[in-house]
Amino acid sequence: MNETVRLLQTHRSERSYKPDPIPNEILDDIIESAHLAPTSMNSHQVSIVVVKDAARRQRIAEIAGGQSWIAQAPVFITIVADFNKTRIGVEKTGVPQQTQHSVESIFSSVTDCGIALGTIMVAARSYGLGIVPCGGLRKNADAMIELLELPAYTFPVVGVAIGYIDKPASQKPRMALASYCHEERYHTEGLRAAIDAYDTTLEEYWKQLGRTDGLPWSKNTAKNYSKVYYPKVKPVAAAQGFTCED
Amino acid sequence: MNETVRLLQTHRSERSYKPDPIPNEILDDIIESAHLAPTSMNSHQVSIVVVKDAARRQRIAEIAGGQSWIAQAPVFITIVADFNKTRIGVEKTGVPQQTQHSVESIFSSVTDCGIALGTIMVAARSYGLGIVPCGGLRKNADAMIELLELPAYTFPVVGVAIGYIDKPASQKPRMALASYCHEERYHTEGLRAAIDAYDTTLEEYWKQLGRTDGLPWSKNTAKNYSKVYYPKVKPVAAAQGFTCED
Repeated sequence: MNETVRLLQTHRSERSYKPDPIPNEILDDIIESAHLAPTSMNSHQVSIVVVKDAARRQRIAEIAGGQSWIAQAPVFITIVADFNKTRIGVEKTGVPQQTQHSVESIFSSVTDCGIALGTIMVAARSYGLGIVPCGGLRKNADAMIELLELPAYTFPVVGVAIGYIDKPASQKPRMALASYCHEERYHTEGLRAAIDAYDTTLEEYWKQLGRTDGLPWSKNTAKNYSKVYYPKVKPVAAAQGFTCED
Repeated sequence: MNETVRLLQTHRSERSYKPDPIPNEILDDIIESAHLAPTSMNSHQVSIVVVKDAARRQRIAEIAGGQSWIAQAPVFITIVADFNKTRIGVEKTGVPQQTQHSVESIFSSVTDCGIALGTIMVAARSYGLGIVPCGGLRKNADAMIELLELPAYTFPVVGVAIGYIDKPASQKPRMALASYCHEERYHTEGLRAAIDAYDTTLEEYWKQLGRTDGLPWSKNTAKNYSKVYYPKVKPVAAAQGFTCED
């Protein structure tokens, strides 16, 4: 196993940070890594907004539903699906952009945002920094759009807090590999047994950590997914131009 | 700059592969890296399907619109948004899953698929392998679903071909960093100038490579984004249960 794979396989989300700033040359290296990641058809349909200002990080922590670690860590990066940049390019050729109306445009741009996030996480961890991804900014996506002054045809997809770790997190166990990796075709047999086993694994994990609020996987997932988790996403995305019409 | 960041900053998509198989222990390490990547709220809403069978890779090359490198490279991994696994967990607790009806569920799961893709790409490149991501499988997502026997509540988001490089690709230049990375808030000024400069950069790049089919960025983006690029995505996703109703 090489060092890059070791980093990937020890991934964990840190939620306790020191206030120490990240040296510019390290942050620049992390950002340039994401900048050089691929985008679908070289569309450049991703942008990032780097927030260091403490009051603004405090505001993002609130927008995300009270995530204190965003206020603690010195840097928060929002990854933005950006069809404003493409719009300027398309209109330069004398035709209107249409892609933002399609469900496909969300699949395509959000995949690229996920690549950027994965790239930032491993680049930051390669410098000994901790990271925690944050989908919570979609809870109040309208407030994020206002705070970051995001123009039409852009949407804040996901964020990541980065900083030096105070109290290190442990690595959460995963469901069995066979439930994740399928050979040649998707295999439904065995999924229920893997879930049953994982429910037990997580219960034991929470007990080890002394966490009394931890739920088995099924119950936690039911809590989140028996409803629409962030109901603002559809209307706010539509107001930004992502209408899902086509 | 450390080795991980060097790998990230030298990212390129390879489109010429030797037929040599990937040793199992290397492929296992790449897959385990993706398996240990995070998913939103530990939902495990991602699965992968690993195709090695040559006839099936040939079929995927056709489905993706004629991407010969998928038939050439020994391994193709499809990354699947998987609300089937979560459904089994949610229903185990006695309630129905609702999340798949929401636009939010696409943002959330596709971000996680992008993280998995980014993880697979850098893990593979750390072993000297080449990779090329493939969104083209969404062109005929219905055929991919049939080939991979994907059940309801799953969708093939993106794929990646992996193998040993035959003729190495060069790294495509990017638009100026200032058009990608914004400080504190999104800055619209300067975008048009960055696009104009990048149009020139890409024209020169294609000329250097002797590629007569290469377009400036604006024209290429207009060709793709003045229409709905993959119109099947919305109806096929809806048929799988991703209705975008909420």
